[in-house]
Amino acid sequence: MIPSNWYNIVPDLPAPPPPPLHPGTRRPVGPDDLAPLFPMELIGQEVSGERYVPIPQEVLDVYRLWRPTPLIRAHRLERALGTPARIYYKYEGGSPAGSHKPNTAVPQAYYNAREGAAAHHRDRRRSVGVGAGVRLRPVRPGVPDLDGTGLVRPEALPPLPHAGVRRHRARQPLPVTGAGSKILAGDPDSPGSLGIAISEAVEVAGATPDARYALGSVLNHVLLHQTVIGEEALAQLPEMPDLVIGCTGGGSNFAGLAFPFLREKLAGRIRTVFRAVEPAACPTFTRGAYAYDFGDTAGFTPLLKMHTLGHSFVPDPIHAGGLRYHGMSPLLSHLYELGLFEAVTRAQNECFEAGVRFARTEGIVPAPEPTHALAETIAEALRCRESGEEKVILTALCGHGHFDLGAYDRYLAGELEDYTLPQDRIDQALSELP
Amino acid sequence: MIPSNWYNIVPDLPAPPPPPLHPGTRRPVGPDDLAPLFPMELIGQEVSGERYVPIPQEVLDVYRLWRPTPLIRAHRLERALGTPARIYYKYEGGSPAGSHKPNTAVPQAYYNAREGAAAHHRDRRRSVGVGAGVRLRPVRPGVPDLDGTGLVRPEALPPLPHAGVRRHRARQPLPVTGAGSKILAGDPDSPGSLGIAISEAVEVAGATPDARYALGSVLNHVLLHQTVIGEEALAQLPEMPDLVIGCTGGGSNFAGLAFPFLREKLAGRIRTVFRAVEPAACPTFTRGAYAYDFGDTAGFTPLLKMHTLGHSFVPDPIHAGGLRYHGMSPLLSHLYELGLFEAVTRAQNECFEAGVRFARTEGIVPAPEPTHALAETIAEALRCRESGEEKVILTALCGHGHFDLGAYDRYLAGELEDYTLPQDRIDQALSELP
Repeated sequence: MIPSNWYNIVPDLPAPPPPPLHPGTRRPVGPDDLAPLFPMELIGQEVSGERYVPIPQEVLDVYRLWRPTPLIRAHRLERALGTPARIYYKYEGGSPAGSHKPNTAVPQAYYNAREGAAAHHRDRRRSVGVGAGVRLRPVRPGVPDLDGTGLVRPEALPPLPHAGVRRHRARQPLPVTGAGSKILAGDPDSPGSLGIAISEAVEVAGATPDARYALGSVLNHVLLHQTVIGEEALAQLPEMPDLVIGCTGGGSNFAGLAFPFLREKLAGRIRTVFRAVEPAACPTFTRGAYAYDFGDTAGFTPLLKMHTLGHSFVPDPIHAGGLRYHGMSPLLSHLYELGLFEAVTRAQNECFEAGVRFARTEGIVPAPEPTHALAETIAEALRCRESGEEKVILTALCGHGHFDLGAYDRYLAGELEDYTLPQDRIDQALSELP
Repeated sequence: MIPSNWYNIVPDLPAPPPPPLHPGTRRPVGPDDLAPLFPMELIGQEVSGERYVPIPQEVLDVYRLWRPTPLIRAHRLERALGTPARIYYKYEGGSPAGSHKPNTAVPQAYYNAREGAAAHHRDRRRSVGVGAGVRLRPVRPGVPDLDGTGLVRPEALPPLPHAGVRRHRARQPLPVTGAGSKILAGDPDSPGSLGIAISEAVEVAGATPDARYALGSVLNHVLLHQTVIGEEALAQLPEMPDLVIGCTGGGSNFAGLAFPFLREKLAGRIRTVFRAVEPAACPTFTRGAYAYDFGDTAGFTPLLKMHTLGHSFVPDPIHAGGLRYHGMSPLLSHLYELGLFEAVTRAQNECFEAGVRFARTEGIVPAPEPTHALAETIAEALRCRESGEEKVILTALCGHGHFDLGAYDRYLAGELEDYTLPQDRIDQALSELP
């Protein structure tokens, strides 16, 4: 069944995560600094020291649309690989948006509505959402929409609908924000990024009376909401995993699955190893710095201590748009520094190869983001074939790839790029850290 | 839980359905006539007199990927409509294909594999599937694929991906079949149809050694497999419906939901009314003849007694591609003649309006096909608002609209056509009945 609480890992950690800082004073930001952007209940969750946060009944009533999500043993994939490993995946693709994003979009909408933003107004342009595939209000013609890839001009988006919903919603010509204009002035062919999208969303939220900003990943309260994934998996699994694997962009998918298992590990009840997989084109944990940086490209947010490639870094346009973020969840970054999980990278073509392999054996076409976790899962299962080890692997299948068939098409036609990321691009962006 | 049997309505009917006829002899076709196209187990199911057919364990093991599917009360839609009606929907969009089609694709693949077609061969081109969104084997570059809309030339397909998967799969230039060539010679701009797609698939299956043909709707065994939908709904509902509403193209979605409830009604245990909804552009029940006709455009199939607009009728290119079929399930047609359900039509724009209304209240973007049922459901709920009647309505939400965002885009931009269907087009096609 659906858990009745979200799990907050912070009080179980051996050390607290470093606080966000005001970019001017470099002192910790307080609730008042965040109030223009978020409702108080979410600000409270952001800094909460409680291990469990009750899920409101109204949110549970919506979760019931797609939760609990299935936990599936990948029997056919195991057989195809000839591995003694036992592979389980937690599938979030049956949600209305086809991904794990509604797990946090729904409570964010709920708290915003309860505190008066976005509700009780005829003008619905009150909460501005951004992220991979979910927005907090329905599309209406004539209402300017922000686009999750940033740079909200339809002509700036890739010809293939790798961004799915987002491209659809950007069909009508939209005003480019001040931040967007500046970026386009510097690079008219900018492929956009999550960092740019955050700048544009924060700018619009700030310029719209009573508007709030809703984030799809990165912050503590978003990761908190996603822990329903891991709590369910913990109850569904017939055996505890030796290894938990998830992809990381802003970190909410991996954290959502891993945190409840990390709680069990920190309490000494299991010995699971955790592994984050990031794209070779955006290797935040593996090649970034652990430093205070802006959460967005234009520098509108507080400074966050996190693994970052530098806020001015714009990742190459791989199809896994949800992983194209220069930074990383500060909480996950803190856990990484504490040695609580490993991180590896995978390149675009090997990820799509894993996605096709998975689709042909398990029947589900995965989104490009979780193919990173699948590529690592398959590699681990093949290592087990060599060693004979009967490892139990749990992986996060955070969304379907029905919006990404154009990307699969390009992969199958041999047209997909494997970008290399020269060190000087990283060095350049890191030299601009605040 | 998942039912352990499929339900066959035939033995519960007051009269048996008329048999398929050989087009040359006009005598009933026997198993030998069908053996080149279908495995024996499916032929047996096609003519079975047993009320229940056990679902093989291997099929149940795959059904578990997405079944049981949720049965959801549309509280928010009810509130938005201000109706005293209670609306329930059975949602099949969480399946790997995003629709109800895998309910039959999986058992068809299973029986084909067990009888040697499609399995144990290095050349996988053994089972040729057609239908709305599901094919029986994975895409491989270099292997010619049939397209569910017929006329398998990528340039013949609409610019917006209303056909989703299908358009994707037709990206590589494909040979047009003999049947397709003939149709294109008569109308180079033919929009295709399910009848054309069946002709092309049967032609390819016939020309490929050991190939079999897999159908997505129309025939008895397909409807049989879909009864898992209704059996689950029957067990999940807290109250029996006064009205069951489903869209009909070939009929499998409506039959899958309705048949188990019809069993209860035929046994005198409930008094439910059943209503099929078809597109105004393809009004088979409401404006077609009940006559023997070919199941496909080119005349390759046996003659089926069914409601038909004439096998030469090509529906206008509405976005609900799964409803663009000139004929109708012979079994459902028989039930319609027995007076067991009603049929109505809905036009394209009112269906998309219902789809948007549903998405804005229930959070799920529906496929264009089930928006026909939603338009009728909403109209009925508004009638209840007038009358004060607390009617219990159950509707089939057979798939998500993630492949159809382009169509929604066109609707929201006011660009969507509402075709009118002149009577002389129907008269012309019906004059060519065999």
